[in-house]
Amino acid sequence: MALKNKKSNFSDWYTEALLSGEFIDYSKVSGAHIYRPNSFSIWEYIHTYLDKKFKRDGVKNSYFPLLIPEKLLNKESKHVEGFSPEVAWVTHTGKSKLKERLAIRPTSETVMYDCYSKWIRSWKDLPLRLNQWANVVRWEFKHSTPFLRSREFLWQEGHSVFETKFEADKEAIKISKMYKDVYENLLAIPVLEGYKSEKEKFAGAEYSISLETLMPDGKAIQACTSHHLGQIFAKAFNINFLDKNEKKSLPYQNSWGITTRSIGIMLGIHGDDKGFVIPPKVAQNKIVIVPILFKGKELPVLKKANEINKKFSKFGSILDDRSEYSPGYKFNHWELRGIPIRIEIGPRDLENKSVTVVRRDNGVKESVKITKLEKRIPEVLKIIQSEMYENASKNLKNSIVDVNSIKELKKVIDSGKIARAYWCGSVNSENEIKKNTGAKSLNSIIDANLKNKICFITGSEAKYHTYFGKSH
Amino acid sequence: MALKNKKSNFSDWYTEALLSGEFIDYSKVSGAHIYRPNSFSIWEYIHTYLDKKFKRDGVKNSYFPLLIPEKLLNKESKHVEGFSPEVAWVTHTGKSKLKERLAIRPTSETVMYDCYSKWIRSWKDLPLRLNQWANVVRWEFKHSTPFLRSREFLWQEGHSVFETKFEADKEAIKISKMYKDVYENLLAIPVLEGYKSEKEKFAGAEYSISLETLMPDGKAIQACTSHHLGQIFAKAFNINFLDKNEKKSLPYQNSWGITTRSIGIMLGIHGDDKGFVIPPKVAQNKIVIVPILFKGKELPVLKKANEINKKFSKFGSILDDRSEYSPGYKFNHWELRGIPIRIEIGPRDLENKSVTVVRRDNGVKESVKITKLEKRIPEVLKIIQSEMYENASKNLKNSIVDVNSIKELKKVIDSGKIARAYWCGSVNSENEIKKNTGAKSLNSIIDANLKNKICFITGSEAKYHTYFGKSH
Repeated sequence: MALKNKKSNFSDWYTEALLSGEFIDYSKVSGAHIYRPNSFSIWEYIHTYLDKKFKRDGVKNSYFPLLIPEKLLNKESKHVEGFSPEVAWVTHTGKSKLKERLAIRPTSETVMYDCYSKWIRSWKDLPLRLNQWANVVRWEFKHSTPFLRSREFLWQEGHSVFETKFEADKEAIKISKMYKDVYENLLAIPVLEGYKSEKEKFAGAEYSISLETLMPDGKAIQACTSHHLGQIFAKAFNINFLDKNEKKSLPYQNSWGITTRSIGIMLGIHGDDKGFVIPPKVAQNKIVIVPILFKGKELPVLKKANEINKKFSKFGSILDDRSEYSPGYKFNHWELRGIPIRIEIGPRDLENKSVTVVRRDNGVKESVKITKLEKRIPEVLKIIQSEMYENASKNLKNSIVDVNSIKELKKVIDSGKIARAYWCGSVNSENEIKKNTGAKSLNSIIDANLKNKICFITGSEAKYHTYFGKSH
Repeated sequence: MALKNKKSNFSDWYTEALLSGEFIDYSKVSGAHIYRPNSFSIWEYIHTYLDKKFKRDGVKNSYFPLLIPEKLLNKESKHVEGFSPEVAWVTHTGKSKLKERLAIRPTSETVMYDCYSKWIRSWKDLPLRLNQWANVVRWEFKHSTPFLRSREFLWQEGHSVFETKFEADKEAIKISKMYKDVYENLLAIPVLEGYKSEKEKFAGAEYSISLETLMPDGKAIQACTSHHLGQIFAKAFNINFLDKNEKKSLPYQNSWGITTRSIGIMLGIHGDDKGFVIPPKVAQNKIVIVPILFKGKELPVLKKANEINKKFSKFGSILDDRSEYSPGYKFNHWELRGIPIRIEIGPRDLENKSVTVVRRDNGVKESVKITKLEKRIPEVLKIIQSEMYENASKNLKNSIVDVNSIKELKKVIDSGKIARAYWCGSVNSENEIKKNTGAKSLNSIIDANLKNKICFITGSEAKYHTYFGKSH
């Protein structure tokens, strides 16, 4: 049951750990996966955390239909170009053929903005900021990987309408910061924030802000996006309003989303050869208690283990008192599942009125007096959370290399790292990079200092300070 | 903008109130509706409340794919018979035709139990109790009504597996009680609990427990269901386990669900000719404050209104200080949306250091000293909640009439009420009732006293004490 080596074979390690840790299972539909409680619970933490932040910020939740008529999906040309190759089409219901095909939503701009054009009449109706937590289907033809690339995923999609571009710009960056907070503070994952390039931005957006990070296989991954749509969709969907001077005006729009991919990014980055490591803040079970049982000495140990388990029930503690398995088997079992803290208690611990506390993230053990446990456990959980983030941060930082030529860029990419360079941002030069190195631009630093900087490819004035990498 | 009369024209009243109160909107897909924040927030209350109860009871959340291969859907014959006429079929993705059609889940028994057969090996794996909050599509060909009958709806579906029938039976009734609690204590809706008849039970169930209630148009409605599936699916999906004696055994299963129909039931029952009335416990905005402004006296009134608004922000209070609308317009606006309490404050109130508190459910006004407001508002909310339930209960009780013949039953049904009778439960007699009265059995009282009772149709021994009605 040993996992593959994470460093040398990330892809196999990842799927094996997901399957044997009971995080996912495959379904009979290729590319669609089952989120078992061990992984779905992580999504629930993200959902609860973000939902509260959105609501506090004035966003309201709603629900729009799953199925979108073909004509409606086709209304904004760049948007449909981006999505139609991946659309799953409903053509029949029961025994009847539909007159018009229905798309399963790949995203909900079209169905939502069709309503927005009815609902928005005046500046008094703005801002309109709706969100939905939903499933979407994008029939990817690339190789699928659970959470990272799949044909159905869960996400939230926020869709806002503002009177002014100023307000829309402000929201786009504010939402990106909320996502950053989720990655850094909940999932203990460092991220690079920045603007997507012309070539890589969302189909139908004026600009896209993304968070990106680096997976252990040396490929970068887009962690979430916040798009400013300008007036592009407002024009296509005829959304307009009477402004304060009674003038008919086009509003400015944003859309933004984070998906269940975040679970895969977190699991992939934090794991080791024993399996996953769940950051305490998103671990439904933060503690597992393993009694070390010797014949004839079971009862007092089990009694104390039970007491401790009750004490830590608010941490979702698990007492693994199964008699048919050895302690070693149990250690492996729970390490695979990433439970942050293991408490071992045997007859000798009991004699010392203490237990052994073992950290999942680095294996460090400490003996803790039972009377001090209630004080110590929250401290250890806090330390684990922050050290997981610090270690991942160091790792990301060490994986970013400044480059001055395509040749240098290729070398960095080939070594599984991320390259950073001053860049003009042209589609031509991005195509050249792709052709010569297999990499694409990830995103460009917000508010970069570009004074006197020139593009590392064209030599013209640099407009961006950009991360490049191979990407999932 | 006046609504239709609720009593004489429920159907028009209902959809008009939904649309003009901004609870729903229609989408371009006939029969699929948009849940706007005013109604989606009610679903969030139900979700949060039940999810906590389920988890406390040991149920875990998961997520299974939306799309089910045709072959898998067809695995249990009665089940597929029940659902296939309503299935939406995906036949194409992008420009490719699929080899096998995929059903959008009408319910998830098949996709979940296919996994259960892999996951369950031993009694140690039981009970397995998973739940998911999801969307489902059932392409109804009957006339659709928002929430009550639609082609897509939201629900939770729980799917449990037990070693013994005893445990499964116990869970089926326990879940039904949780649903009853949601209807009675959150939504202030009285319900009738009981077993569905042979003819009306779930496709593939051994028995179904349902909650039923009466809508204002005189038609009953099924509010939710909890099914005991026996070993029917276990056989079809080859789910078996080694029991404590190492014997290969078939487990017993349940499935249970409550849907967004609950929102429609609640809105439909509690409303009046002014619009909806939201029970305080599921009202995101429990209070609206309307300042009564007279020229030259606006400032002190607005200042006090603002103070009160801040004090009640935890009740989701709204201050309607729009200067372009009259108080009367505002009263109508918020009554339509069902806000439980309106606080009016004008210059004269201010002189008396008091405000006028108006109940949405019955229009009763009281003058409350501002210093007493923080104590009084929670009391009034509590009274509203309990009186809404009591009134609806009285109404349901008065609408149930005991009958002794089909003729009597028809009279009761034609008057928009529910008939109750002792019954043998045969499919033949149910068909006869349907033919002669248009009614069907709703459900049969659990633990009814049947001693010496005979069937009101066949004269044979009564097996059930049953509610009958026309049904949505």
